[in-house]
Amino acid sequence: MLAKRYINNPVVRPSDIKPSMEGMQIECLLNPGVFMFEDKLWLLLRVAERPVQKEGQVSFPVLRDGKPEILSFMKDDPELDDADPRVIKYKGKHFLTTLSHLRLVCSDDGVTFHEPEGYAPIMGTGPQETFGIEDCRVTTMEDGYHLTYTKVAPEGVGVGYLFTTDWKHYEHRGMIFPPHNKDCAIFDRKTSDVYHALHRPSSPEIGGNYIWLAESPDLLHWGNHRCVATTRENWWDSARIGAGAAPISTPDGWLEIYHGADHKNRYCLGALLLDTRDPSKLIARSSDPIMEPTAEYELTGFFGNVIFTNGHVVNGDKLTIYYGASDEVICMAEFSLKEILKSLKHEL
Amino acid sequence: MLAKRYINNPVVRPSDIKPSMEGMQIECLLNPGVFMFEDKLWLLLRVAERPVQKEGQVSFPVLRDGKPEILSFMKDDPELDDADPRVIKYKGKHFLTTLSHLRLVCSDDGVTFHEPEGYAPIMGTGPQETFGIEDCRVTTMEDGYHLTYTKVAPEGVGVGYLFTTDWKHYEHRGMIFPPHNKDCAIFDRKTSDVYHALHRPSSPEIGGNYIWLAESPDLLHWGNHRCVATTRENWWDSARIGAGAAPISTPDGWLEIYHGADHKNRYCLGALLLDTRDPSKLIARSSDPIMEPTAEYELTGFFGNVIFTNGHVVNGDKLTIYYGASDEVICMAEFSLKEILKSLKHEL
Repeated sequence: MLAKRYINNPVVRPSDIKPSMEGMQIECLLNPGVFMFEDKLWLLLRVAERPVQKEGQVSFPVLRDGKPEILSFMKDDPELDDADPRVIKYKGKHFLTTLSHLRLVCSDDGVTFHEPEGYAPIMGTGPQETFGIEDCRVTTMEDGYHLTYTKVAPEGVGVGYLFTTDWKHYEHRGMIFPPHNKDCAIFDRKTSDVYHALHRPSSPEIGGNYIWLAESPDLLHWGNHRCVATTRENWWDSARIGAGAAPISTPDGWLEIYHGADHKNRYCLGALLLDTRDPSKLIARSSDPIMEPTAEYELTGFFGNVIFTNGHVVNGDKLTIYYGASDEVICMAEFSLKEILKSLKHEL
Repeated sequence: MLAKRYINNPVVRPSDIKPSMEGMQIECLLNPGVFMFEDKLWLLLRVAERPVQKEGQVSFPVLRDGKPEILSFMKDDPELDDADPRVIKYKGKHFLTTLSHLRLVCSDDGVTFHEPEGYAPIMGTGPQETFGIEDCRVTTMEDGYHLTYTKVAPEGVGVGYLFTTDWKHYEHRGMIFPPHNKDCAIFDRKTSDVYHALHRPSSPEIGGNYIWLAESPDLLHWGNHRCVATTRENWWDSARIGAGAAPISTPDGWLEIYHGADHKNRYCLGALLLDTRDPSKLIARSSDPIMEPTAEYELTGFFGNVIFTNGHVVNGDKLTIYYGASDEVICMAEFSLKEILKSLKHEL
């Protein structure tokens, strides 16, 4: 097995975190961004909340002028479809059952986390984040931390960009990839004098949920979009794939840990290898997943059978990933970079 | 009526144009880009071709290494769904019934067109244009002509960008908006030192087919995406809307002619007014369409009940639009800009 799970997983659970306001409860912790800051390891958690539920009703929050407003439907309303725990369909419209924001926790040992004082949560703001913000990747560069995350609103789901140096002040840099797009990971340095990012546009008919590459001179404006990897029919990554955190520079090329889901919404992890000088060239790819949901906390939970990562740290050959398990708890696992690279197939 | 149709419409029909190669027939002419060049008015037509059909079969072309290759299905294959004349569905995959390229015709009087010698068609090329190229907008600037068009391939449908000064040599500038995106119109000048473009991302679930604005320092890389107009439930533009050609600068603001379709795929034209200094601000919008399919050639054809424009010329108060009617023939109509502006509703 490539993945060595931390024996005391999960490392953070919903009960470890306080709700953002009275009347709300934390349903899930998901998919943290990961970074080093002031000699500690930090997670930027996605915290999904909803109001304490009343019998016979489904209640969920949306943001108006930055403040949560509660919407409620009767559970027996024939127009209501709440079969998916993540999404409510009502009269053809989609709402999220929970509202997500981002929360900082930090650790000295990489497995014991606490919420430090003085670091405010990052809440959704403005019309592009009415349904919240999700799944933040943190790319660390010399000038500071570059955050890409999912902006969710009735007008669509796109990629937002924030910049910070101190985790107390944030510069909002707008939506950098328009709907429908998520899973954006910015490379931590320029290649041939341009920045690169992986992202995941979605198509309703022609096309699919594939990983694309884009270029930028300034991280704000992006072009030259090219598809680097598609889903594979009848494989574990047949329905959708998306980038994890920023690619890891290795002697063999840029190594990207990605998630792949099948049509039963089972999420596994795999890896891609991209050419060092031209990251639009896919060199190698996982045939089997490098990690599949097998532990109990990965099989059952808010949305079971899910492993999803978008944050890690690298120390020499050791890759430590933090991941959301069953869309509910945060876990940790370690890999050897060499072993991952050795496992990749060069015949694509 | 705001629209004055040219009495001898259509101005160009499929029979006026030669197929690009032997064995192919032109099914439709669609949605031309429009520009002035060497004192003539030019249309950059979308020409949709398919192979001469054999009985009992559906045959259509795809491009491989820039050359058309014919795919055929038996009409009685139970896996085949050819109910939509534009799209073939086979085993869950989507193909186009026709392959489109772009063709130049020019005119001295604006209504009599011919194919000039020495100007080659623009054909799809490379993996992003396997299913062809469509619906080109031409934005004329001091340095030359900036072309935005739809790149269609199995990996998705996105916006391509070409630049030319002489209509004989083209600089390929890549995909500027990733899937699913089309209907991109670049403004013909900078506002507050940045370029702007309208574009139309599509979302499979949350969101829809709305008109968005993007910014760019160099026309190649785009960011700060914001939604400027959405569809309106139970209106003529309830299912999808998309920009026409480059916005027209008027004393009241940027005037944009757009198309709106309802859930029965009836396409009409409307107008939007955007703030001169901040085109992300929608000031006014058509309540009723400025033009609806009513003429016989607009009601019936390859795909009936369709008026679609992405090209026009402005002379003083006179706006002359060229448009695709019923996805089959090219027509012309004239408007007064003042009358369109007067018709817009400022209460949004």
